[in-house]
Amino acid sequence: MRIAQAGLFRSIKKDLEILEEDLLESVKSDVPLVTEVGTHLVKSGGKRLRPALLLAAAHASRNFSRDRVMPLAAAVEMIHMASLVHDDVIDHADTRRGTPTANAKWGNQVAILSGDYFFAQAFSKVAHARYGEEVGMRLAKLVSELSVGEIQQDAMMFTAEHSIEEYYQRIEKKTADFLAICCELGAMVSGADEEVCRGLYSYGHCIGMAFQITDDLLDIVGDAKKLGKPAGNDILQGVVTLPVIRALEKSPNRDELAAIITNRHMTDEDVKRALEIVKATDGVDFAKSKADEFLAEAKKALPKELPEDIRETFVAAADYIGKRDF
Amino acid sequence: MRIAQAGLFRSIKKDLEILEEDLLESVKSDVPLVTEVGTHLVKSGGKRLRPALLLAAAHASRNFSRDRVMPLAAAVEMIHMASLVHDDVIDHADTRRGTPTANAKWGNQVAILSGDYFFAQAFSKVAHARYGEEVGMRLAKLVSELSVGEIQQDAMMFTAEHSIEEYYQRIEKKTADFLAICCELGAMVSGADEEVCRGLYSYGHCIGMAFQITDDLLDIVGDAKKLGKPAGNDILQGVVTLPVIRALEKSPNRDELAAIITNRHMTDEDVKRALEIVKATDGVDFAKSKADEFLAEAKKALPKELPEDIRETFVAAADYIGKRDF
Repeated sequence: MRIAQAGLFRSIKKDLEILEEDLLESVKSDVPLVTEVGTHLVKSGGKRLRPALLLAAAHASRNFSRDRVMPLAAAVEMIHMASLVHDDVIDHADTRRGTPTANAKWGNQVAILSGDYFFAQAFSKVAHARYGEEVGMRLAKLVSELSVGEIQQDAMMFTAEHSIEEYYQRIEKKTADFLAICCELGAMVSGADEEVCRGLYSYGHCIGMAFQITDDLLDIVGDAKKLGKPAGNDILQGVVTLPVIRALEKSPNRDELAAIITNRHMTDEDVKRALEIVKATDGVDFAKSKADEFLAEAKKALPKELPEDIRETFVAAADYIGKRDF
Repeated sequence: MRIAQAGLFRSIKKDLEILEEDLLESVKSDVPLVTEVGTHLVKSGGKRLRPALLLAAAHASRNFSRDRVMPLAAAVEMIHMASLVHDDVIDHADTRRGTPTANAKWGNQVAILSGDYFFAQAFSKVAHARYGEEVGMRLAKLVSELSVGEIQQDAMMFTAEHSIEEYYQRIEKKTADFLAICCELGAMVSGADEEVCRGLYSYGHCIGMAFQITDDLLDIVGDAKKLGKPAGNDILQGVVTLPVIRALEKSPNRDELAAIITNRHMTDEDVKRALEIVKATDGVDFAKSKADEFLAEAKKALPKELPEDIRETFVAAADYIGKRDF
């Protein structure tokens, strides 16, 4: 579901409509198959959280120009799309948000190359818009960190030796840095003051941490139908998240839990049992409280200079992350 | 084998040595596994044709500065490396140039993400070097075209309806544009005249066409040991190249050939038979003569203003492509 449809980001509704057009335009290619893949991916959804934050942040400046900021908004969504396409190949995922993945529909070959194409198109858009090389540098670093973060996550899969610090570093690379950069760059290319850019960066970082903690939490307690995937999917994939890390510390059944999550051949029954063990601890509440702390910090980080409707938008986005159940 | 070891590019020997150091430095990361993958890939070889051309082209200008051009030379090799890593995942290749591929050594997950990381690091290097956004734009377009070219090639696999024009377009996207851009950008960032840049672009394009035709030719007539893969590998993979296209036009056994190359379950015996049919025609000579035509055109395109040793380097590179047998 688009984030706009959740009643959020109303203040930039028009921007988000134009973003959809821009994205469809951006994935076009001389080769019909490439256009087909791109169109499928754009239409099959996504919350558009990253470009929405970027566009809202751009309104932090009095010099807001939709034409100026739009290529960058489309570029960050394309980077996100590209990384999801590669993730789906890696995870052998058949569906995402209830829609067939690119690899399921066209095979790994087309999916991997389409991902590369979207990455490149994103950098191309940014270079054409001439924001200055700082912006290209930040986005390149972001993609580097996204990839490295995933490799790091993969190296830690099916292990039971996780710390909260390691988990935070992991979700920082995976999500928080991305949202932070969206908020910062949106303000930056619109010519906002440095302090405003810094404040929005912190805000983005904090809601990013909260967003990923919540995402991970929903994998434990969420409704399979709303999630579009069965609960416990992370455990099945070998990805250890905050409630599980907490349970590994606190549960009387921690040895049983460790045995399950380190077993690459765990059954669905094992996953169910692992979920039971985690839910019997304060792991879920603990994660929830950490997410809430980050959201409170996010609101505090919002720069004072923001126009009132944009401040409200950012506050509402933070509240939404705290409450979302899908 | 490094192209320098073939006795080529002697005039830029020092540059190529420093390139190796720069590449090893460029693939380093906080995450040891990423550094390990990168170091393996850098050390496992490659001809370094792209950065060698770029560095030689940079000498076209009197204002040559090794420090200035080196990040770009490393970036084009990293882009090449990244695309090979993804190709190897797609082709399920176990070895490249006799060395285990990243996917064979670390799995698809790490290989796909490492490829993304190298792409991003390349763009990061270029942005940091501040060549101006034109350079980033050209490289982003190049990666787009590389990906699209591969998708196009995949869509044409195991079909018998190929034309020479379609083949030329395909190898242009796959190889010729890349070499052309290396030659052009090397001259450009060193401040060479526009005419010199244009001439070197044409030279790069022509040797790129010849290089790919020769590569495809060697798959038909080459020595399996020198190639590091069995002859007829392209046919087995469903990739139809110039000698085969010619044979499909001229051979009395064209129907048998078409039946083999369109069969996704062809046996090694089938491949042998296809090679026999192709070799019985003038397909190989035809392709060889086309490669030679492109090489002659390449030499003609070389700008008159080049320093003599650099002109000789470019001429020798063209001659090498015409003669190489591995």
